[in-house]
Amino acid sequence: MTFVSYKKDWTGNSRQNHDSVNTNKDKWGGKMAFSKGKRIEDETSKRIVDLAVNIGCREGADALTVTRLCRELNCDRRVIYNRFRDIDEINLVVAQRCNEELMAKAKNALKPQASFEENFIILIKTAFTYIYEKNSYFQHYTALYKVTETGIKNTILQEISALVEEGKAAGEVRAETDSHKAAQNIWLLMTGIGTMLAANIDYKYQDGLDTLLYGAEAVSAYMRTS
Amino acid sequence: MTFVSYKKDWTGNSRQNHDSVNTNKDKWGGKMAFSKGKRIEDETSKRIVDLAVNIGCREGADALTVTRLCRELNCDRRVIYNRFRDIDEINLVVAQRCNEELMAKAKNALKPQASFEENFIILIKTAFTYIYEKNSYFQHYTALYKVTETGIKNTILQEISALVEEGKAAGEVRAETDSHKAAQNIWLLMTGIGTMLAANIDYKYQDGLDTLLYGAEAVSAYMRTS
Repeated sequence: MTFVSYKKDWTGNSRQNHDSVNTNKDKWGGKMAFSKGKRIEDETSKRIVDLAVNIGCREGADALTVTRLCRELNCDRRVIYNRFRDIDEINLVVAQRCNEELMAKAKNALKPQASFEENFIILIKTAFTYIYEKNSYFQHYTALYKVTETGIKNTILQEISALVEEGKAAGEVRAETDSHKAAQNIWLLMTGIGTMLAANIDYKYQDGLDTLLYGAEAVSAYMRTS
Repeated sequence: MTFVSYKKDWTGNSRQNHDSVNTNKDKWGGKMAFSKGKRIEDETSKRIVDLAVNIGCREGADALTVTRLCRELNCDRRVIYNRFRDIDEINLVVAQRCNEELMAKAKNALKPQASFEENFIILIKTAFTYIYEKNSYFQHYTALYKVTETGIKNTILQEISALVEEGKAAGEVRAETDSHKAAQNIWLLMTGIGTMLAANIDYKYQDGLDTLLYGAEAVSAYMRTS
């Protein structure tokens, strides 16, 4: 028997930010100046994001700091803060890039002639395997999200939700299905099992995949029209 | 819109321990002496566990150290290490205690006359609400597990699995149902959503519960005999 492997606490900080204010309480309840209103979308923004993706996915979110970005871009901190609220926002942009790459791969595996249910499972399996094959830094980004008034936002979640809506349009998914809830369940299982696999050499990929597919098939059957 | 709340990386360390050896590679690949073979189950063990539960659930796993236990019990480190492999093992015992308390509450809410499906949902809802009402230290312990040759071990998971087996015996759950996979899906959703709630003041309990119940109902319907 192998013994005592467990996942670390993954509780983040409770915080509340608002888009349209230029001061905000930071994590310790103090006040910090942030970027004002709209994001500047220019070549510099693109360079910042490219560099952030490079650092975040190769060295991890801990290595991704504003100081590091400024050093490598040879620029002032204001160049960053004029474009991004804080490092959390930059991390979310990195997550979006990682997840777009992931979901492009997963959607590429879909079969045009297959049923919704078959494609739903293919998408989940392909995405999960892609996450598994990447390093833990990439895996970290697949679990990042933001909370908005309309719920949890994460690219993987949105893409699964969109597929469910397509299934509805095709008459293969019950019209009353809450595609966001279905997708959130799949995303939680996918990232939860992915993290367990990354944390335990004794927990095998096939076991993780089988558990995920059990959940995916249950959710899929629950949505079925027939 | 609220912005940029995300869960922290919850990747633990990959490690492999064996029960019957008295040396073992530690997290950094070195060698450390551990307790030899069988656990000593005596009054001192009980006092250590009681104190560990007290510290762990009130001040968090970070505050729970062998040094702290020795100081409060006024004992030598060997007293601890003769009984427990390391602090990870002590944390797992604390987790077991927390989860036994939680599942006793949840099982107490079951209705003797209700169907399996109704009781399955009651158990999940009661456990989830209990976790939500506890502090984040307690929540942390609900997500602890160990990997054994037969799969993931966690008290919540085992109790849900046992309920599914009861459903099978009563003919309300399909005989071919893998109760462990079903339970692991529910446990992952329960602890995953619980952690999101703890980390984001903007993510509401009712939204989390609704998402969990969607998954629970899907798994429940998937197991149904009729």
